[in-house]
Amino acid sequence: MKFGHFDDSAREYVIETPRTPLPWINYLGNRDFFTLISNTAGGYAFYRDARLRRITRYRYNNNPMDQEGFRLYIREDKGMGKEPVIWNPSWQPVKTELDSYSCRHGMGYSIFKGSKDDITVSQTMFVPENENALIYHVSLKNDGKTPRDIQLFSFVEFCLWDANDDATNFQRNYSTGEVEVHGSAIYHKTEYRERRNHYSIFWCNRNVSGFDTDMDIFNGPYGSAASPDAVLEGKCRNSIAHGWRPCGAHQIDISLKPGEEYTVVFGLGYIENPEDEKWENLDAVNRTRAEQMMIRYNTDSKVEAAFEELKDTWTKLLRKFNVESSEPRMDRMVNIWNQYQCMVTFNMSRSASYFESGMGRGMGFRDSCQDLLGFVHMIPGRARARILDIAATQFPDGSSYHQYQPLTKRGNLAVGSGFNDDPLWLIAGTDAYIRETGDFSILDEMVPFDNNEDLAQPLMEHLRRSFNYTVTHLGPHGLPLIGRADWNDCLNLNCFSSQPGESFQTTGPSEGPVAESVFIAGMFVKYGRAYEAICRIQGLKLEADEAEKHIAEMEKAVLTHGWDGEWFLRAYDAFSRPVGTHKNEEAQIFIEPQGMCVMAGIGKETGEAAKAMKSVHERLETKYGVVLNNPPFRHYHLELGEISSYPPGVKENAGIFCHNNPWITMAETVLGHAEEAWDLYQKICPAFIEEISEIHRTEPYIYSQMIAGKDSPRFGEAKNSWLTGTAAWTFLSISQGILGIVPDYDGLRVTPCLPKKMKGYKATRLFRGTTFDITVERAGKDEEKGLWVDGARQPDYLIPVTEKKTAEVLVRI
Amino acid sequence: MKFGHFDDSAREYVIETPRTPLPWINYLGNRDFFTLISNTAGGYAFYRDARLRRITRYRYNNNPMDQEGFRLYIREDKGMGKEPVIWNPSWQPVKTELDSYSCRHGMGYSIFKGSKDDITVSQTMFVPENENALIYHVSLKNDGKTPRDIQLFSFVEFCLWDANDDATNFQRNYSTGEVEVHGSAIYHKTEYRERRNHYSIFWCNRNVSGFDTDMDIFNGPYGSAASPDAVLEGKCRNSIAHGWRPCGAHQIDISLKPGEEYTVVFGLGYIENPEDEKWENLDAVNRTRAEQMMIRYNTDSKVEAAFEELKDTWTKLLRKFNVESSEPRMDRMVNIWNQYQCMVTFNMSRSASYFESGMGRGMGFRDSCQDLLGFVHMIPGRARARILDIAATQFPDGSSYHQYQPLTKRGNLAVGSGFNDDPLWLIAGTDAYIRETGDFSILDEMVPFDNNEDLAQPLMEHLRRSFNYTVTHLGPHGLPLIGRADWNDCLNLNCFSSQPGESFQTTGPSEGPVAESVFIAGMFVKYGRAYEAICRIQGLKLEADEAEKHIAEMEKAVLTHGWDGEWFLRAYDAFSRPVGTHKNEEAQIFIEPQGMCVMAGIGKETGEAAKAMKSVHERLETKYGVVLNNPPFRHYHLELGEISSYPPGVKENAGIFCHNNPWITMAETVLGHAEEAWDLYQKICPAFIEEISEIHRTEPYIYSQMIAGKDSPRFGEAKNSWLTGTAAWTFLSISQGILGIVPDYDGLRVTPCLPKKMKGYKATRLFRGTTFDITVERAGKDEEKGLWVDGARQPDYLIPVTEKKTAEVLVRI
Repeated sequence: MKFGHFDDSAREYVIETPRTPLPWINYLGNRDFFTLISNTAGGYAFYRDARLRRITRYRYNNNPMDQEGFRLYIREDKGMGKEPVIWNPSWQPVKTELDSYSCRHGMGYSIFKGSKDDITVSQTMFVPENENALIYHVSLKNDGKTPRDIQLFSFVEFCLWDANDDATNFQRNYSTGEVEVHGSAIYHKTEYRERRNHYSIFWCNRNVSGFDTDMDIFNGPYGSAASPDAVLEGKCRNSIAHGWRPCGAHQIDISLKPGEEYTVVFGLGYIENPEDEKWENLDAVNRTRAEQMMIRYNTDSKVEAAFEELKDTWTKLLRKFNVESSEPRMDRMVNIWNQYQCMVTFNMSRSASYFESGMGRGMGFRDSCQDLLGFVHMIPGRARARILDIAATQFPDGSSYHQYQPLTKRGNLAVGSGFNDDPLWLIAGTDAYIRETGDFSILDEMVPFDNNEDLAQPLMEHLRRSFNYTVTHLGPHGLPLIGRADWNDCLNLNCFSSQPGESFQTTGPSEGPVAESVFIAGMFVKYGRAYEAICRIQGLKLEADEAEKHIAEMEKAVLTHGWDGEWFLRAYDAFSRPVGTHKNEEAQIFIEPQGMCVMAGIGKETGEAAKAMKSVHERLETKYGVVLNNPPFRHYHLELGEISSYPPGVKENAGIFCHNNPWITMAETVLGHAEEAWDLYQKICPAFIEEISEIHRTEPYIYSQMIAGKDSPRFGEAKNSWLTGTAAWTFLSISQGILGIVPDYDGLRVTPCLPKKMKGYKATRLFRGTTFDITVERAGKDEEKGLWVDGARQPDYLIPVTEKKTAEVLVRI
Repeated sequence: MKFGHFDDSAREYVIETPRTPLPWINYLGNRDFFTLISNTAGGYAFYRDARLRRITRYRYNNNPMDQEGFRLYIREDKGMGKEPVIWNPSWQPVKTELDSYSCRHGMGYSIFKGSKDDITVSQTMFVPENENALIYHVSLKNDGKTPRDIQLFSFVEFCLWDANDDATNFQRNYSTGEVEVHGSAIYHKTEYRERRNHYSIFWCNRNVSGFDTDMDIFNGPYGSAASPDAVLEGKCRNSIAHGWRPCGAHQIDISLKPGEEYTVVFGLGYIENPEDEKWENLDAVNRTRAEQMMIRYNTDSKVEAAFEELKDTWTKLLRKFNVESSEPRMDRMVNIWNQYQCMVTFNMSRSASYFESGMGRGMGFRDSCQDLLGFVHMIPGRARARILDIAATQFPDGSSYHQYQPLTKRGNLAVGSGFNDDPLWLIAGTDAYIRETGDFSILDEMVPFDNNEDLAQPLMEHLRRSFNYTVTHLGPHGLPLIGRADWNDCLNLNCFSSQPGESFQTTGPSEGPVAESVFIAGMFVKYGRAYEAICRIQGLKLEADEAEKHIAEMEKAVLTHGWDGEWFLRAYDAFSRPVGTHKNEEAQIFIEPQGMCVMAGIGKETGEAAKAMKSVHERLETKYGVVLNNPPFRHYHLELGEISSYPPGVKENAGIFCHNNPWITMAETVLGHAEEAWDLYQKICPAFIEEISEIHRTEPYIYSQMIAGKDSPRFGEAKNSWLTGTAAWTFLSISQGILGIVPDYDGLRVTPCLPKKMKGYKATRLFRGTTFDITVERAGKDEEKGLWVDGARQPDYLIPVTEKKTAEVLVRI
């Protein structure tokens, strides 16, 4: 069952009913000011940090759900003795049935259109480029034949900045709220008098008939956003909030002749003032910057221009990689949604979605390194800056904080370190950046260790310590020690937690124990080779040879001690017992080492790789994707940790953990298994499962972290949409694995691995300043296979770097 | 305006409309299992720790407010084509207008009664003595003349145990929920398989027609507690939760003849199982203990007996102090509500109310010491245990953690130490315990320092280090260093915080700076005298003499350097500049030093005390109480901290901070100012301001932390009801200050300070095993003043300790 459809030419997903299985959201903003917005205009805004600088309040896990957002109410009196008609163009929170409804989620904008009784309201929401504001462009139109008097009310509820404190510390917060109102602009200035240099504004570009800033007065006692007293009565109270719950609400009374349209612009902005420019006078904030912002959007044409600028930005961004094939669902994911999700995950890491409350997690070291794999071709400069930020949280011994805070860029002590795969992800991210840009100068950038400038070393030294961290942290089988966990945060082999509430990730020792990870071994082979290659290109032959030796030893260790007969083992536990072996009753096989080791080419020549893939198909693959392990854990294992704490079939315990499914896809392409790769690609690809949205439940235009596996009673149900490494990895699996367009140090390699049904494709790829128009086709019976650039045959399917602005590429396979 | 009335004979407050200005709540449970319950049956339950062992979910600061609770729905079909009638006996969350409604909050129970269309439902809620369960005793009665078919639905939403994690970590929590259903019992067993040894049960003693355990199925998509699909349709779905939001709901179909009554018992219980008795089999929990619990309440008569037992407990508790006077409003506070609130604050500290989310704060060192001042006469044994718990968190140097966690009894590192009044409160609490009980043996109890058993010393040594901590931490004026703060957590003289989000209480140095507190000086004189007295009684003459010398020096320092001419200074800041002086523009005078220094008797003989009281009246007193300081701060003062961060007139910035008002009341009685003392007592006493409940807004039967002062636009509005030291201190101010019944080391002293309008009173006081029936009367013209016990004149208005079970006491004043 579908709840909408893709509009590819507009780059939009069009939701046709407000009653989606869960709120289906979009992200507005690309730099500092962000807004999460659902298909019923629920959501919230924040500046940079969803925890520390929350601008509007959002109640997660609420009942009813998704009540807070960017609300517009339409009210019309129906005459004496009759109830007024009240509705929202985006349905919630009043939930009056609409005559028509649509929500168009586009690239950085969302458009809501609702109509009732011949009044149509359109609400376009976006964050302009380089602006710290959310703009609503609103139109109301009388489609009927009689004049109409209607009222428009706006409503937002302000958050008192620190979302965590705001949600817990009421004995203080109910006393601190402060506002000012000037004309149609509501200034939310809680704590501005003391230590804050920022306030928010909620304004509109029309004169208003009334306003409210005290939510309890606007809603009324025991009222709510679903039935605010002020709207019921058609009259704001011009309340000034003193404590309790500050809000912003406008009332505009509008007369519309038949066919007449009325437009209004609302804005929700964030303003910072320098210390010496904070005040107009003792009781009034300095409004200069706010007024300048409002002027920038005070006419329809200015707003339209800003909207066009945003669209243009995305056109340019998405033009960098574009494909046209016989598979429109793949095309729309590659060209639009998958790249869009890569941008969002790059911006957000795992901080703020409708499942991530924005309070818990900073930027992940590993997460961000992976996110940029799918993003680096869009804005390489931002990926470069991120790599340097991440590297600066590395410890001198090569290990690293597992997370850091985006506002301070400092490592997060509470989560700590000891996730032994982390260092290798720095190599992965840096390698991807260099392959994309050819910019080896990043390796010479001086970067602190542990955020200490005195310890700064060139980035190359960071990579060296990353590589050596694994070399110097091997266990009894010559495999890497796992530390607190590897990529699978829930496989906690040194934790031994028996008390509720203990963090599985920070309990127990991170150093010393013998538990080993076959997954990290695979990573070491894969990204160790990248490190080796970088050394060689840098002229560090001895070091490269040394690295090569370590990699060969690791490969041997994996095939000797990391192989169970039909698949790769997962790990050795703290007692040196194998994990992920047919000898166990639960979790005999895990997905991660099969994907990573085969991607690294381990056992490719000797047959283990193919066997591992066969075992994945036989033991882990389901109709909705590949589960993480099987059989699921039915007992809690003290020696394995969080993974065994989940009910069977969900999350890391035999759920379809989407992130690692593209590893299998890519592994299949390494072995040339085109059909298997394609088959798995489409199984978890949202656009391909749009028809089962009532089962899948999350958005059909983006990936989710997890789909319940076959051992769960809710098999096929997805959770935790948007913020997942799945975005980057599926983009890699389709663009580099299946389509085969792979950036390399000295050019762009095109080695497709297409399923039979796909005869070829056309692609546009901006690479190091040149736009390559690539045509891939299957060689005819007598045709030569190979790659031609502007007619010239190139060796090794490699497009060399060129000075040209454009070039035609033909690939025959 | 009133929203209810006191029913003193039943010891109940009867709320007559569900539409109170804010939810008006009650506390059920006295030991381990607690429930907060509002006048519309909103609220939540927890076991011991509101953060770590939350049993049902509650959404603070929600919109609409107070939606979660202990819900019963009544549904009746009205025939084909008609809407069914659906209502809650406690009005929320459906909010159908009722024909009648009442909520009776009593001692550890609440009774809801609602009727509609001749169906009356009564819902009695209580936590039986020594039981880890909330019991609902429910009756449905057909008051009409026709047979009726109705349906009863119950509903609770389970919290996934850790309330903080439950409210933030959705990417995990939406996957973990698990339940079992057996007969009419719903078992909530999330995380039981792994590290928890506890589950909760929600059962009823009748066969049910259906159940639900998945809230989203019970409510329906986009539904809510205000209109659950299952109730709308009259049919539960028998859902089994797998993740998402586990709940418990029962459906009972009932036919009632005219006049017929139907009763049912619901229970919400908490069960712990030993590790080796956790399981029945791999997928089923061991239900033995749950079944035993259910059997204990499976008939009406068993439930009625348990209810009577609870009432009886309270009768016995409250019999220990009872007064009868010409002032019924005072009597009801002293005899019922003030003592009841003292029990609640003793149990909860500042952890869980409708303003304290239960997530933020453990047991306060200072808070708990003060709470027990008002509680110690009720159950001295529990006060004794608490004192030892508190003292165990003291550091070897006499300072202490400011808070500790009730589950672990360990100091809370996040809040830290350095609140330099804390040590003296330990003396205050211990002294009160000894005066009440005569039990000097507590001083010999071995108590750890910093929870380290190796450092254990007798409690007397703890008191010694408390006393000496002040002696060894004096500033340039010979006044005590303030550290991070004294009693006023918001006066942060060493903090200098300029960044938002910094804790005012843990930023900046706690040691070293010169900032001094006149308030602590007053405390040192007052409680130092208690310490001195204890030393003397213990035969430690030299030590007592030494203490006396320090106290005298402190008194002199206060009168020399702590006096501003018309009132006591508040402090010296980090630059040794006076705080709370007429030389400043803002906050010229503070309440705390006036109250504490005069209570300590400083300046009583030399006139400063009376002057200070006069200044309080002239500069701080308002019609709703005494504000904390004046004029209010209108600027943020880096050198003063949080106090200057609040808007003028609220909280510590010129709000009526109720806690310190009884200090003034008591100070007035020290000076013999009976009228002034009485006047202030009644100003903030809830029962005296019941008539302005629409202004006061919080419950008229208990004290709130704060009432907005005259500088706030919401003058008179109270906030943060229930958990405040106001409970204990007002009980002291009325029972010891005005009524003058003061426990002393060698007996009970009776020295009333009654306003003219009060001719005397009768009181019952259980003291060290003897019930004293006390009659206080004004001496006639020729009558001798004095105190007689069973007819025998006693010196110094002192009732000596006796072996008798009862004794008659006459006091003529």
